[in-house]
Amino acid sequence: MENLSAEDVERLRGIYEPLTQSVRDLIDATIRTEVDGAAVAAAKAEIDAATARLRRRQLGGPFGVRFGAEGSQMPWGNAVIGLRNPVAPPLEIKRGPDGGLFADFHLGAAYEGPPGHLHGGVAALILDHVLGEVASSSASEKPRLTGTITVRYRRITPLGDLRVDAAIVRTEGVKAFAVGHLSDAQGITVEAEGVFIQPKWAR
Amino acid sequence: MENLSAEDVERLRGIYEPLTQSVRDLIDATIRTEVDGAAVAAAKAEIDAATARLRRRQLGGPFGVRFGAEGSQMPWGNAVIGLRNPVAPPLEIKRGPDGGLFADFHLGAAYEGPPGHLHGGVAALILDHVLGEVASSSASEKPRLTGTITVRYRRITPLGDLRVDAAIVRTEGVKAFAVGHLSDAQGITVEAEGVFIQPKWAR
Repeated sequence: MENLSAEDVERLRGIYEPLTQSVRDLIDATIRTEVDGAAVAAAKAEIDAATARLRRRQLGGPFGVRFGAEGSQMPWGNAVIGLRNPVAPPLEIKRGPDGGLFADFHLGAAYEGPPGHLHGGVAALILDHVLGEVASSSASEKPRLTGTITVRYRRITPLGDLRVDAAIVRTEGVKAFAVGHLSDAQGITVEAEGVFIQPKWAR
Repeated sequence: MENLSAEDVERLRGIYEPLTQSVRDLIDATIRTEVDGAAVAAAKAEIDAATARLRRRQLGGPFGVRFGAEGSQMPWGNAVIGLRNPVAPPLEIKRGPDGGLFADFHLGAAYEGPPGHLHGGVAALILDHVLGEVASSSASEKPRLTGTITVRYRRITPLGDLRVDAAIVRTEGVKAFAVGHLSDAQGITVEAEGVFIQPKWAR
């Protein structure tokens, strides 16, 4: 868990962000390709060569959280926001003028459930993350993890351009109550509310 | 939405399943690699070449659901079970002797939230999927989609070998009530309950 300088963080971002973006593009192509078996085999050989190259030196386990200048967190492996995780869209979460959090993002073929539509569980994944982040942001940046979350589906969510919003309703010691929703251009599609609790190790 | 023969389905599985598995391996290597910038650039060039090759002929949108022999569904693009979706673990869901559904699976670095642990939202994603599938399985295989789901986190879930179980509690016309849980070798880590509703277009 090195304490990297701001310059080092930028250098690492410059190396790894384009790689991860290329893998996201490959994921989409893998799902949608209709090329024949010979072309698929050739692509697979290129992919396996890239994997072997990347594995020549690697972490023994998952990425975890590294730390940058002044203790800033680098959750680069995170499944929702990780800039080094190809599974993450990734969300770039911003703070609104009212103190809530929001993100605008695009979800394609990799996040499909019902044909042409977002997997309901991916909506839950994203809402869980953003509600948890807003719930943690009032506690001197100490994490609050999900205790219970309820997700209500108003209507089916199309794949494409989406937005998530989340806000704290109230805090009560180690607990915070948060609400939020997912929306497309036509309005809210999924709502969530939850209680988030600071784990003992973070108190 | 072709009506493929069982032979064709097996042939397509033989072509695409190894490709998708290679991309899953690449995702893990992308998160964990510590090779230098030159090696990352070389890997990125190989990945971009594979992507270009796969995109020479592709679907115009997401995968959707294709149909095999006797109308069997092929949800190969699905974010949880899709054998052509590298983001999916993928879960292989089986029916237990009591009529419930379960799956044993392994989740690594790509599904991380808190350092070394499963993202709570990924637990919600998996539970939403398996509860939805068990809720749909009593309705002549017509889908029931999530109306509301509540997910309770008993303790933090480690990355590694996990299991999910789900069962129907009761049905009420177009609605089904389902429960389930995620567990590791030490027992249950996350519980869920939800109501799943047949959409109008499927009635």
